[in-house]
Amino acid sequence: MKKVAVIMGSDSDWPVVKGACAQLEALGIPFEAHILSAHRTPGQAALFAKNARAEGFGAVICAAGMAAHLAGAFAANTTLPVIGIPMKGGAMDGLDALLATVQMPSGIPVATVALNGAKNAAVLAAQILAVEDAALAERLEAERAAMARQIAEKEARLQEELERK
Amino acid sequence: MKKVAVIMGSDSDWPVVKGACAQLEALGIPFEAHILSAHRTPGQAALFAKNARAEGFGAVICAAGMAAHLAGAFAANTTLPVIGIPMKGGAMDGLDALLATVQMPSGIPVATVALNGAKNAAVLAAQILAVEDAALAERLEAERAAMARQIAEKEARLQEELERK
Amino acid sequence: MKKVAVIMGSDSDWPVVKGACAQLEALGIPFEAHILSAHRTPGQAALFAKNARAEGFGAVICAAGMAAHLAGAFAANTTLPVIGIPMKGGAMDGLDALLATVQMPSGIPVATVALNGAKNAAVLAAQILAVEDAALAERLEAERAAMARQIAEKEARLQEELERK
Amino acid sequence: MKKVAVIMGSDSDWPVVKGACAQLEALGIPFEAHILSAHRTPGQAALFAKNARAEGFGAVICAAGMAAHLAGAFAANTTLPVIGIPMKGGAMDGLDALLATVQMPSGIPVATVALNGAKNAAVLAAQILAVEDAALAERLEAERAAMARQIAEKEARLQEELERK
Amino acid sequence: MKKVAVIMGSDSDWPVVKGACAQLEALGIPFEAHILSAHRTPGQAALFAKNARAEGFGAVICAAGMAAHLAGAFAANTTLPVIGIPMKGGAMDGLDALLATVQMPSGIPVATVALNGAKNAAVLAAQILAVEDAALAERLEAERAAMARQIAEKEARLQEELERK
Amino acid sequence: MKKVAVIMGSDSDWPVVKGACAQLEALGIPFEAHILSAHRTPGQAALFAKNARAEGFGAVICAAGMAAHLAGAFAANTTLPVIGIPMKGGAMDGLDALLATVQMPSGIPVATVALNGAKNAAVLAAQILAVEDAALAERLEAERAAMARQIAEKEARLQEELERK
Amino acid sequence: MKKVAVIMGSDSDWPVVKGACAQLEALGIPFEAHILSAHRTPGQAALFAKNARAEGFGAVICAAGMAAHLAGAFAANTTLPVIGIPMKGGAMDGLDALLATVQMPSGIPVATVALNGAKNAAVLAAQILAVEDAALAERLEAERAAMARQIAEKEARLQEELERK
Amino acid sequence: MKKVAVIMGSDSDWPVVKGACAQLEALGIPFEAHILSAHRTPGQAALFAKNARAEGFGAVICAAGMAAHLAGAFAANTTLPVIGIPMKGGAMDGLDALLATVQMPSGIPVATVALNGAKNAAVLAAQILAVEDAALAERLEAERAAMARQIAEKEARLQEELERK
Repeated sequence: MKKVAVIMGSDSDWPVVKGACAQLEALGIPFEAHILSAHRTPGQAALFAKNARAEGFGAVICAAGMAAHLAGAFAANTTLPVIGIPMKGGAMDGLDALLATVQMPSGIPVATVALNGAKNAAVLAAQILAVEDAALAERLEAERAAMARQIAEKEARLQEELERK
Repeated sequence: MKKVAVIMGSDSDWPVVKGACAQLEALGIPFEAHILSAHRTPGQAALFAKNARAEGFGAVICAAGMAAHLAGAFAANTTLPVIGIPMKGGAMDGLDALLATVQMPSGIPVATVALNGAKNAAVLAAQILAVEDAALAERLEAERAAMARQIAEKEARLQEELERK
Repeated sequence: MKKVAVIMGSDSDWPVVKGACAQLEALGIPFEAHILSAHRTPGQAALFAKNARAEGFGAVICAAGMAAHLAGAFAANTTLPVIGIPMKGGAMDGLDALLATVQMPSGIPVATVALNGAKNAAVLAAQILAVEDAALAERLEAERAAMARQIAEKEARLQEELERK
Repeated sequence: MKKVAVIMGSDSDWPVVKGACAQLEALGIPFEAHILSAHRTPGQAALFAKNARAEGFGAVICAAGMAAHLAGAFAANTTLPVIGIPMKGGAMDGLDALLATVQMPSGIPVATVALNGAKNAAVLAAQILAVEDAALAERLEAERAAMARQIAEKEARLQEELERK
Repeated sequence: MKKVAVIMGSDSDWPVVKGACAQLEALGIPFEAHILSAHRTPGQAALFAKNARAEGFGAVICAAGMAAHLAGAFAANTTLPVIGIPMKGGAMDGLDALLATVQMPSGIPVATVALNGAKNAAVLAAQILAVEDAALAERLEAERAAMARQIAEKEARLQEELERK
Repeated sequence: MKKVAVIMGSDSDWPVVKGACAQLEALGIPFEAHILSAHRTPGQAALFAKNARAEGFGAVICAAGMAAHLAGAFAANTTLPVIGIPMKGGAMDGLDALLATVQMPSGIPVATVALNGAKNAAVLAAQILAVEDAALAERLEAERAAMARQIAEKEARLQEELERK
Repeated sequence: MKKVAVIMGSDSDWPVVKGACAQLEALGIPFEAHILSAHRTPGQAALFAKNARAEGFGAVICAAGMAAHLAGAFAANTTLPVIGIPMKGGAMDGLDALLATVQMPSGIPVATVALNGAKNAAVLAAQILAVEDAALAERLEAERAAMARQIAEKEARLQEELERK
Repeated sequence: MKKVAVIMGSDSDWPVVKGACAQLEALGIPFEAHILSAHRTPGQAALFAKNARAEGFGAVICAAGMAAHLAGAFAANTTLPVIGIPMKGGAMDGLDALLATVQMPSGIPVATVALNGAKNAAVLAAQILAVEDAALAERLEAERAAMARQIAEKEARLQEELERK
């Protein structure tokens, strides 16, 4: 199976980003996680992106905050799908990171998920790999069913709480 | 090859959305375009999404404006990758559509591209299909090279203009 | 008397949403509260909405945050009045939920109240049921009078405080 | 049948607001339209609101822009459901009017619809009156069905256009 | 000397608003402080505003949050200068209150100060009363000089701190 | 009677700002209008402000856009009431000018009116001068009454239009 | 004298960016203008930045819109001062470009000027080169004096216009 | 070597601003830090700016919040490069200070860095002084290399953490 690369611009992003790794593990998807900065180690970031397809990666997840260029810098150097996680914490509750990630110019898309949306970045990477992998697609469907069951359980607990009153 | 579904919430989105279709055609990717509304034809939209994988689709592109629920409604009913194009024209220059598309809850991602980013939605769909399709990946690389050549040509014209002065 | 349905997308909304239930109880209005998700249990949410009028509901209150589609998904499947409570906590202090709730397309309104405005959602539901229920209208007027009295009491306490100085 | 009051703060709002009147007429709902200003004729606006229930109104629609106080001023003087249409054209593409309409304090709700959402304000008023009027509810359902047919026709035209190519 | 009226929409505004009273006291300006709500006691608020000039007030300060209509409701009922303090705490860090206070329609101004700017509201009221009161104008100039001295003292302390290093 | 100074940062503001002059003239208030820039002629702007009270001015109106410092620069150099008109045309539909005008630090208020609110700036200046000028206060009341009559005339025309249908 | 590099991400930025070139020419500062894209020609952009100091450049001006990474990509590859011009035209009136340019991470600054502020970028570059160039500093002072004279001329014309009335 | 002036509008800015001083010290750049207010000590601020070049300063750093005029007031009175640090803490998470700092009128630039970006302001000042100072340029390059090594160390620690699992 193709691997997923999980890249973050700073180790301070790790507490959020590891949620993506946990989700990839839960779905049985191989991944690597790395710290690479679009601004502090631009050459290494570009090199990693250029080699990513040849190294067996199928998708790249990039998390960055503020003037979040990391996902865009990766997207500029690979034609693999690049998923961007805008991180909260800069200006206007993360709006800076969101706009800097999603508003990419024509021809160089970044697949942007919600602010701090590490889990969803991993699910999206899995959906991408599942296009040609029926077993993974089934695991994704199973996880959806589990989510629906969780809602049902919470609904049941709410009804109990309401009846007790 | 898997097909791409291009869904729009209203025919008024077509002038922008057909840019996605043109890009898919240029890359030789089969697609269908449809008008389906999350709010006016919710049942049909859900049905289309549920059957999309079985119908041979590999990715879904959804374009919608204002309280843009279309991509989310699709994402709720399929585990295929769903790409959202927020359309300009509602409140605050499209910020309503952008936030309503990208800020999806945990477990149900939408791969969001720039406001009115129809071409990029198509490129992202192509990148997804190219993960397991080396020929398509090469066509994407060739398009990148063409983009770089265009920049070089524009740079040359600018130098000519500057020298003439 | 018609019932009010109080729907939330997640049990994490309950600490705010129960303020709506308390207000409905205080006004003697029968209600049901349920957890249903536009994205995790879309089929059940649509089904509940479709049957709501026949089940004796007169209004539906939906609370959701981030890309808040819940109220819109209900409004798409019923012609009952649907009241949306945008929840704080996503991007830009809840602006994402507010715009995703209020900016509905033509023909499918959601009656939107303030961010986290659970009590006001219940008052609005009561106002809707009171259009043809004079006794309920009187209870609403009585509550208004009580609110004015509270202001008068606070004003009196302020004057005491100012005089003591 | 109860009447709907359609109030606007200025005659410059009429080109948008008459869309609400047209929708009410199409649904066979009696209405009155008036120009009353929360700031220029505050006494008359308060008086109209206080008498509205006794005058046979079942819902009030208020349209105003900028620091849009009109709906709130009505809501402060009646316990009828008050629907607010924030008008575009002030600061930040109408965000001023939207926030000034929707962010009402606890106890005094305004049922806010989209920016310039005159048609939706009328549909919401109709939904309110239809809670106890089965015939009107049927007309609303019929209009929904007509909307779905329009989507289907547009979809058919799109397929024709795509096939011709 | 004319009095200043300090009005707040809720006693929860008092911790901020009393800063205005303290400043008025420091400048020797008589004032009254009251709790009056544009939405919960609209009639009393209008009455107070209508009588304010005859009661010997020379300026009115109104503090309110969210859909902050209080200053506008006063301005609609008096031609005295009305100063608005938008309170933080609603949507987008108080942007709702700021826009609802400042974006008044033509003919009915509200003199808006900064978010939570209670002290500045009082200074502005003093500046208004000082237009025809040379003694008060001198007190305002003296306060300015004191502010400059405070800056000079802080500068001196900073230089000491820097030298010690 | 005290004069009003109307200051603008650029002659490009004149088409809006002359609305303030027209309103002052209509109320019989003497005024001067000047072009002075906080950034291009800072010394002259400071000098004008420092001398304004001695020169017989009772209020100053300052109009500026973008990083609108003009009103603040005046307020820093006089204790006369300074009224700020934030001009549209910079970033985010004038939000830059609005925030740069209203968010003044403690002790130095600017009485801010709506974006492009030239007429209201003049009305506010008149209200300030009218605190101790009963004749001017009467002219302001007369203008309010005229505004109410205008609304009544527009209402009458709307009723005629509705009846003709 | 050191040269200034004027870089733009697309030839569509030229109508604005050439204002920077005109200003540099007026001040007698040598410059080169180039089209280089952070996303379409990332390698060439990085190479240009790395060699800029050795090639005799003293400052770099970068203009880009939307997710404006160009200035940041240059700043990551040189320790020369990099001046960023955020271009209008993306989301929210250019707020995307502004935040993506200014919100750089610690250690890698971009000297950001106003939206579309091409002339100011050139003035800033001149100010940087003038730190060690007294003749250029004098030319900057002369230009300031000319700006003040322009204001004085406009003021004179305004006084003429006011007197004619 | 030319000195850098570090100016703040209030001593409450010092906890952030001293980060700029620490960075300047680390690079061996002489500096002075002062408290001067555009609004409370406008004359002294203007005087300092006018004399700054003659006093041996090569760049000025100004930190201010809310309606942040300090950098603009300096830029209006000197042709030295003026670097603005917008401070968080006013409206909308510092957006007021950012726009009031960056949106300067044509001819009077302020080199704006990120919200609370004290370190980057110092780095930018160093980059400006390094244009004609090869030794300082080398120290800046050395600091960049150190930043890259820090990233590499964090990456190494992350790989260890991942392997241990």
